[in-house]
Amino acid sequence: MKQYSIIVLLIVILSGTAGFAQTSPTAIAEDFKPSSVNQPGQEYPQVNSQGYGRFQIKAPDAKSVVVSLGLGGAKGGTELVKEQDGFWRGTTAGPMDEGFHYYHVTVDGGVFNDPGALNFYGSTRWESGIEVPAHDKDFYALKEVPHGNVQQILFPSKSTNTSRRAFVYTPPGYHKDKSAKYPVLYLQHGWGEDETAWSNQGRVNLIMDNMIAEGKIKPFIIVMTYGMTNEIKFGGMSSFKIEPFQTVLVDELIPYVDSNFRTAANPANRAMAGLSMGGMETKTITLNKPDVFSHYALLSGGTYSPEDIKDKSKAKLIFLSCGSKERPEAIKEATSKLKNAGFNAVSYISEGTAHEFQTWRRSFREFAPLLFKN
Amino acid sequence: MKQYSIIVLLIVILSGTAGFAQTSPTAIAEDFKPSSVNQPGQEYPQVNSQGYGRFQIKAPDAKSVVVSLGLGGAKGGTELVKEQDGFWRGTTAGPMDEGFHYYHVTVDGGVFNDPGALNFYGSTRWESGIEVPAHDKDFYALKEVPHGNVQQILFPSKSTNTSRRAFVYTPPGYHKDKSAKYPVLYLQHGWGEDETAWSNQGRVNLIMDNMIAEGKIKPFIIVMTYGMTNEIKFGGMSSFKIEPFQTVLVDELIPYVDSNFRTAANPANRAMAGLSMGGMETKTITLNKPDVFSHYALLSGGTYSPEDIKDKSKAKLIFLSCGSKERPEAIKEATSKLKNAGFNAVSYISEGTAHEFQTWRRSFREFAPLLFKN
Repeated sequence: MKQYSIIVLLIVILSGTAGFAQTSPTAIAEDFKPSSVNQPGQEYPQVNSQGYGRFQIKAPDAKSVVVSLGLGGAKGGTELVKEQDGFWRGTTAGPMDEGFHYYHVTVDGGVFNDPGALNFYGSTRWESGIEVPAHDKDFYALKEVPHGNVQQILFPSKSTNTSRRAFVYTPPGYHKDKSAKYPVLYLQHGWGEDETAWSNQGRVNLIMDNMIAEGKIKPFIIVMTYGMTNEIKFGGMSSFKIEPFQTVLVDELIPYVDSNFRTAANPANRAMAGLSMGGMETKTITLNKPDVFSHYALLSGGTYSPEDIKDKSKAKLIFLSCGSKERPEAIKEATSKLKNAGFNAVSYISEGTAHEFQTWRRSFREFAPLLFKN
Repeated sequence: MKQYSIIVLLIVILSGTAGFAQTSPTAIAEDFKPSSVNQPGQEYPQVNSQGYGRFQIKAPDAKSVVVSLGLGGAKGGTELVKEQDGFWRGTTAGPMDEGFHYYHVTVDGGVFNDPGALNFYGSTRWESGIEVPAHDKDFYALKEVPHGNVQQILFPSKSTNTSRRAFVYTPPGYHKDKSAKYPVLYLQHGWGEDETAWSNQGRVNLIMDNMIAEGKIKPFIIVMTYGMTNEIKFGGMSSFKIEPFQTVLVDELIPYVDSNFRTAANPANRAMAGLSMGGMETKTITLNKPDVFSHYALLSGGTYSPEDIKDKSKAKLIFLSCGSKERPEAIKEATSKLKNAGFNAVSYISEGTAHEFQTWRRSFREFAPLLFKN
């Protein structure tokens, strides 16, 4: 997106306009199209080829309507203006980052979702979502290739005294070749998200389908479950303890998956990865349970130090990533230290993205083919 | 719910109040609890033991906030009143019917969802949902029993030039006994809903799990896909043609399911059922394709006449149902005519419910055990 920012800046300078790009009509390409994650048949929200967002909300008697998205993405906000037909309309002051953004609409001081957009679970609530077409959007597009399934399972959990939900991606062909056994990746969402995030926002099933169709990856199973087991009050992270989730994952979910799916049920064929808070969980659990997982990935979710890992031979892959708008230096430095200490460590920086799902879609695309190679 | 209406009426008469029950404090039991389909951690909306709904919406600067639910359920509406803390609050004027209701909130003339409630796809949009605990809610409760899976599949559809989504319920044990083959029910949603409705609103996977655990039913597979294939503009039903959906269902989805799941792939083991518009589709397609399906169920979705069916031997079961607040006489009369003409016809009337999901949950519970018996 950097190039767009520069273009906008140049136009603003050349046209002598000191205000927002929004006030300079030449800056905004009038090729807005409905976002690809709108509700069926809905024309708004829209995105143009530069990444500007345009919104339209009906609320004829409201005093104020503000969309939480602005320049760059999740930061800032866009005040809509009421027009004579009772609709509030407005365009972001600049382009948003490529990929998926959560947002909401504040109407007269109350927080609601945009009736035009699909909802995605984030920030411990179902929020509106918008998709800014990325230059590399092809890798997570729905294509005419064989598709795997995403299954909702309900597994018994004695430690939490209920049946818990997980989603299981089984690759194309899983139902046909009844003798094949598959490695398994346990893949965690971030704070305030849930087990729907990696499929809905991350499109991880489509990324897998596409990479398998292109022969870039050996098929494996992905298991996604809720990682905020202890966060009963949905408060902050201050009181976060890993044990409740670790028990659900290691003592309840893994045995259930191994007994109900055709898995290669051994540490060499079991990986764990997570984004943000899910990275923190991945780090803690893989270190606590070195005989359960052998491949680790932290996406915008911290780093490992060589001294964290007691038995080097058990960590077959350590993958660390983040967006270029986060702290890429920390990722690169940690990876370098791990490599120097003899670990198979790989880093990836997603260009032009922040702490958002485009970073994690790309990170998944990068680390998935590296799994289960040794 | 009839008994509650009578109680409320009696109290209103006895207390000499001519207005709404809402104004008579003795009428409303103060045992409100958060609805079971609220977003995680949300206290509102609430429902009391009599079926009254209570709502709370934050919108400090709004002029008007109205909830679309009122006495009985989907009909009427409830105007909320702003209190000093900036929250709008209000209680329905009377009890709502048992079971699930769609609703929305009108804020200053704009239609939004209640930020406290989960969303469900109905009326061609994701709407808020609320659950009034029913006297018989046990049959669709999440219990400690073996659970089947609900799988999202993406199947190729040449006629619509895309990959289409369906959800497939496979019963508990499907993944373990790899030789068993299962009958299949194709189960359709109503107008404005989609392939998520029968699981999310209908809880059909839990109803199956519970009935299988109780030994009341022989396990079968359920397939749910989108039935408004031709409704590109999401308009009314006036231009509805069955062919586009019939092609997707019969020529594309059924062969895909039969080749990717362990099905008993013959007419005797294939049923079709639908609610409302899905009933209309079921009737038309089962009559057009008498060699594809052998068991039919229309839930609040019309009736068959004996003369509709050319070869009596091919229709093994005809099930007709609706709520007592719909037109039960028409269902009973049609069933009686079918029986007199020698058909295996069964009717069911859901007591105290209207054209809503509680009627269809109960209808499913009634017809599912009758399927694939002959």
